[in-house]
Amino acid sequence: MIETPTKDPNATFIKTRRTQAPEYEIIKYISQFMPVSEAQAEAIVKNMKFRSFKKGTVLLKEGQVSKMCYFVLKGCIRQYFLVDGEEKTTNFFTEGQPVTATAYEGTFKQKPSKFYLACIEDTMVSLSSPEDELAFFEKFPNLKPARLLATEEELGKSQDSLSSYILGSPEEHYLNLLKTRPELLDRVPQYQLASYLGVTPESLSRIRKRIMIK
Amino acid sequence: MIETPTKDPNATFIKTRRTQAPEYEIIKYISQFMPVSEAQAEAIVKNMKFRSFKKGTVLLKEGQVSKMCYFVLKGCIRQYFLVDGEEKTTNFFTEGQPVTATAYEGTFKQKPSKFYLACIEDTMVSLSSPEDELAFFEKFPNLKPARLLATEEELGKSQDSLSSYILGSPEEHYLNLLKTRPELLDRVPQYQLASYLGVTPESLSRIRKRIMIK
Repeated sequence: MIETPTKDPNATFIKTRRTQAPEYEIIKYISQFMPVSEAQAEAIVKNMKFRSFKKGTVLLKEGQVSKMCYFVLKGCIRQYFLVDGEEKTTNFFTEGQPVTATAYEGTFKQKPSKFYLACIEDTMVSLSSPEDELAFFEKFPNLKPARLLATEEELGKSQDSLSSYILGSPEEHYLNLLKTRPELLDRVPQYQLASYLGVTPESLSRIRKRIMIK
Repeated sequence: MIETPTKDPNATFIKTRRTQAPEYEIIKYISQFMPVSEAQAEAIVKNMKFRSFKKGTVLLKEGQVSKMCYFVLKGCIRQYFLVDGEEKTTNFFTEGQPVTATAYEGTFKQKPSKFYLACIEDTMVSLSSPEDELAFFEKFPNLKPARLLATEEELGKSQDSLSSYILGSPEEHYLNLLKTRPELLDRVPQYQLASYLGVTPESLSRIRKRIMIK
């Protein structure tokens, strides 16, 4: 049952206790791109698949073909490469983020993965195969424009990350994370964060000290 | 007039002398995602806007709001940031590439640009405003799925670039460019290439020597 039903099917999605459940992270995400009524939100959530994974679960290994697209509802998924036996972290996906890493090359083009995906916390996701997505958008054709807008938004973010990585020093990347994703800095083990910033754990420790002094 | 008309409107686009004109780069790009008949190719080309710019033309400056999306038909567009008076190159867009940098944040969201776009060769582009795009896809609704696929493809490439930037040393980036975009290395001034790889021109020179010895 919907707590605050609305008569206008195009009404913007309104927060209620129910809609603060992790499943509704996906509705919050879609709502950035188009209005979603409470009734439609409930229908969308009913038509999605959800799964929880324990901390440490490896969702995808190098060489495997990804069968699923993930969207993080709760927790954190780390993307990393194994280079000469060493884990090199290239991304962290947290609440409200689609795991864009696998979406195209893997799940759509069915190419073997070059990287690993692992849950670094107990994690809840919504997940879909290409067939699930096809069925979903046949059922909700009015959401198709949101899909394009979301992909464009993620492309914009990815290009921003690339530019700031090319432009900045590790210290600047750290400051940028402090500004844009402060919660990440407390959730992620320091050696993984250091790897993501492209420095040794010792250098990261020095960067932190310098910033605290400032 | 079409040189080799086809009776099948869904036939895959076939190369002819006409279709090797720069304007047809955009058709080659779309053909990666869906079949385009010769007749449709001609209609698409007729409905697009093309423009040529002299080497050195600045298409977009920091602080300006981009009104256009560009697709490179011939030539090369460089993306760079001005950091403490110094140009830092973050991308090169050549034949067959959409200039993804402006597409979302700028042209769609109308945010002032953080970077510059300049032609480093005489350059020909197809260009479109958001209104042009709307009119175009109303005229060619069957191309809408190609638009989503293209955006997903560019997102995949952008994420690949980001991962390899985080993972690799400047020497590895150089080797990667040698493998994936060898023509770029001869076309681009060395100081811009060095900036793109995040090294000084002297370091780039040393990297090149080391690779030649190998």
